[in-house]
Amino acid sequence: MTERKAAVIGGGVIGGGWVARFLLNGWDVAVYDPEPEAERKIQEVLQNARRSLPALYDRALPDEGHLAFQSDFGEALDGAAWVQESVPERLELKHQIHADLTALAPPNAIIGSSTSGFKPSELTAQGARVIVAHPFNPVYLLPLVELVGEAGQCADAAAILRSVGMYPLIVRKEIDAHIADRLLEAVWREALWLVKDEIATTEEIDEAIRMGFGLRWAQMGLFETYRVAGGEAGMKHFMAQFGPALEWPWTKLMDVPDFTPELVDLIAGQSDAQSGHLSIRALERLRDDNLVGILRSLRRTKSGAGGVIVDHEASLPPVMESVLPVTVLRQVPETWTDYNGHMNEAHYLEAGAQASDRFMEMIGADAAYIASGLSYFTVENHVRYLAEVHAGDELKITTQVLATEGKKLHLFHSMTRGDGTLAATMETFLLHMDFQARKSVAPQGAVAEALAQYAAAHRGLAMPDGAGRFVGQRAAQ
Amino acid sequence: MTERKAAVIGGGVIGGGWVARFLLNGWDVAVYDPEPEAERKIQEVLQNARRSLPALYDRALPDEGHLAFQSDFGEALDGAAWVQESVPERLELKHQIHADLTALAPPNAIIGSSTSGFKPSELTAQGARVIVAHPFNPVYLLPLVELVGEAGQCADAAAILRSVGMYPLIVRKEIDAHIADRLLEAVWREALWLVKDEIATTEEIDEAIRMGFGLRWAQMGLFETYRVAGGEAGMKHFMAQFGPALEWPWTKLMDVPDFTPELVDLIAGQSDAQSGHLSIRALERLRDDNLVGILRSLRRTKSGAGGVIVDHEASLPPVMESVLPVTVLRQVPETWTDYNGHMNEAHYLEAGAQASDRFMEMIGADAAYIASGLSYFTVENHVRYLAEVHAGDELKITTQVLATEGKKLHLFHSMTRGDGTLAATMETFLLHMDFQARKSVAPQGAVAEALAQYAAAHRGLAMPDGAGRFVGQRAAQ
Repeated sequence: MTERKAAVIGGGVIGGGWVARFLLNGWDVAVYDPEPEAERKIQEVLQNARRSLPALYDRALPDEGHLAFQSDFGEALDGAAWVQESVPERLELKHQIHADLTALAPPNAIIGSSTSGFKPSELTAQGARVIVAHPFNPVYLLPLVELVGEAGQCADAAAILRSVGMYPLIVRKEIDAHIADRLLEAVWREALWLVKDEIATTEEIDEAIRMGFGLRWAQMGLFETYRVAGGEAGMKHFMAQFGPALEWPWTKLMDVPDFTPELVDLIAGQSDAQSGHLSIRALERLRDDNLVGILRSLRRTKSGAGGVIVDHEASLPPVMESVLPVTVLRQVPETWTDYNGHMNEAHYLEAGAQASDRFMEMIGADAAYIASGLSYFTVENHVRYLAEVHAGDELKITTQVLATEGKKLHLFHSMTRGDGTLAATMETFLLHMDFQARKSVAPQGAVAEALAQYAAAHRGLAMPDGAGRFVGQRAAQ
Repeated sequence: MTERKAAVIGGGVIGGGWVARFLLNGWDVAVYDPEPEAERKIQEVLQNARRSLPALYDRALPDEGHLAFQSDFGEALDGAAWVQESVPERLELKHQIHADLTALAPPNAIIGSSTSGFKPSELTAQGARVIVAHPFNPVYLLPLVELVGEAGQCADAAAILRSVGMYPLIVRKEIDAHIADRLLEAVWREALWLVKDEIATTEEIDEAIRMGFGLRWAQMGLFETYRVAGGEAGMKHFMAQFGPALEWPWTKLMDVPDFTPELVDLIAGQSDAQSGHLSIRALERLRDDNLVGILRSLRRTKSGAGGVIVDHEASLPPVMESVLPVTVLRQVPETWTDYNGHMNEAHYLEAGAQASDRFMEMIGADAAYIASGLSYFTVENHVRYLAEVHAGDELKITTQVLATEGKKLHLFHSMTRGDGTLAATMETFLLHMDFQARKSVAPQGAVAEALAQYAAAHRGLAMPDGAGRFVGQRAAQ
């Protein structure tokens, strides 16, 4: 199936997250949900997703696909390569829907269920063709999807999920609650006991997590963290040291707290005291801004989800070129803005530096070239700030070769916003270096030729406004 | 007690982390540990800490304190305001040491135990004066410390911990394993079952955490995450939806897995397959680099640990001034460098922009001034790159007023490395703006006066080398 259409059945928080994940990766999406509020809720999820998912990348995602809300089940499924069911967790309801999906969906379509509670054997008990594809909220930012079910379908599903920037984890034996929710459930029970016994409030428990081990788990998980804690003596030493604690009376988990209205009131009341001053929308934005920041920080080391993003970015299609090459096309991430919402001055230069890097790739002075001991080094940058840029704005940079002579290269980057306004210029002077010899030398061979071609193409162009000027120089009259 | 001296009893990974936390915050530290390898191990922890803890801050931490390894118990304790015990988890050993500490430590000193397994009532059963001060590895980066014990001592301890950038969580009822380790223990048991039953490998469990909920827990913890998941319907709705799962057979935690040699081998073998290609030191550096990135990303929203760092930074002492004010004094964070370990070109400008911001604060154009609707806006920056800068280098920027006339301000920042080499200059042209009127106006009152004073002081200085030049202009002969 080569069509990139997804059908999303059930449009709550999870269904909406799937819509956003596919749509912002260029897929067409048809939503089927008879609930009258579904469209409004999905649009709200999309609003969150549009300000955060593209901000993970330093290149533009594909153009958004087409979003349709279908009242006809068959029409929603028509031509879909992926069908995702995210309806409430009632088995008879799932059975009914999956019987219909199996009958009506294209025969090669992946049919996934977002269920956290049911095993594939339960979903397929009445002959339906379906696998578990269990995502995590917010689906448009968190890469994990647990896949459980028939091996061939899981393998096909994994390939599609990777193409939309997700991380499929194929669970090889079915089990209640799959993997992640078992861990979450264990913590949830323990946390309920702590609150019920007045050892800690919901806020204190959250602090105990996010001030400590939560920071470790965002990057390494449980076992790798403990491996490090074991130190030079290794994992066996760690286990020898901490294993016996399993027999200590450290948890109350041999028992289950009664789920009484009093316990619900206690938890809900503490949660209000902790976070009630922020609306759910405000909390969602805060969560997403933090996730973008954390995920972007993990790009550097390619750890965990950072590696998923870097790999996905490398698979994005290249930008079409004109006379002046487009060296940057991207969204402004929230993390690039300051307290008043404007892009911070250093990030104008960061975008300009990305333009220089991209131009280097275009002339063949790429990572392999640098690894061979040759590279262009930036000697000077002159940034002129001409218009404000905000989070979410599309940035486009075109690059002009002003001059190249031997080891010297003089570039001029023009940065425009999505509305066409010239937002900044950056004039850059670079020298071609030989690392080993620690001196500047002229480039040779393919790089020199590619550069000469750009220089020739740009020779007839006018000197751009603002080039060759010193700081504070008055504009030409 | 006004002295800033800590005595660290027991110098393993945790003890070493305490040493680093205090030492890098300007405390003198005396270590007592008869183990012959203790000094080497602590120096290794310090090496990690020096490259990561200062990188969390945009200002310099205090000068490092003095580190002494003492073979005499009493000398180690002499004059200490904080005594931290981090010896192995054997109650009879703790009793013996705490009897000595109570007898020999200064009477007002806080005596803390890093124990994760013992309650204060157990530690004090034989009359010792001690509270639980339970930190999390790496102690020099993770802010959480659980304090359990006598209320007055816990309050005093909390004040000290805040002053070294930590987050004290006072646990109001003692309980086995305090709070965080109860949650960790619950996950650990469940994870052991998953491995034992061949549902998942250690690596798959780590991916299930770090690709999903781990990213949420680094910033919000458990309850606030679920509050958001509950959506508009609120926390009660969430609990109504997920509460019943408590009675489902989702976890195996009613039982405890046998801690057999086979299970140890299984876990250790899987962990080797997952992470064995990296040494523990390499894993530690990776962990710390990721933590610095995550923590720096949380500074922006002041969420959780990010807020702790921002508050701590605000409490750091100001830098002494000379004729040219020192506007930046800081370490280069790992996150500012590119793949070859050099500071990335955009971060030269970021440091320069921090110098401009600091100079603005010095003349009174601070956050309150901006909130009043007035501010300097950067119009141009010209960065000249003169020398390479590496992660961990100390950066110092001094700022010279080249000219100020009405609404115009022309600054020149000189950036030197710790070895005195001039690494870069940044020439900056700013305009003073009235936000409401959306036009440039001259500053008035205190800001104008403060600026005039700097301008007068700098009037006699030579024009710095490199000022007033255009990009690519040849150096003066």
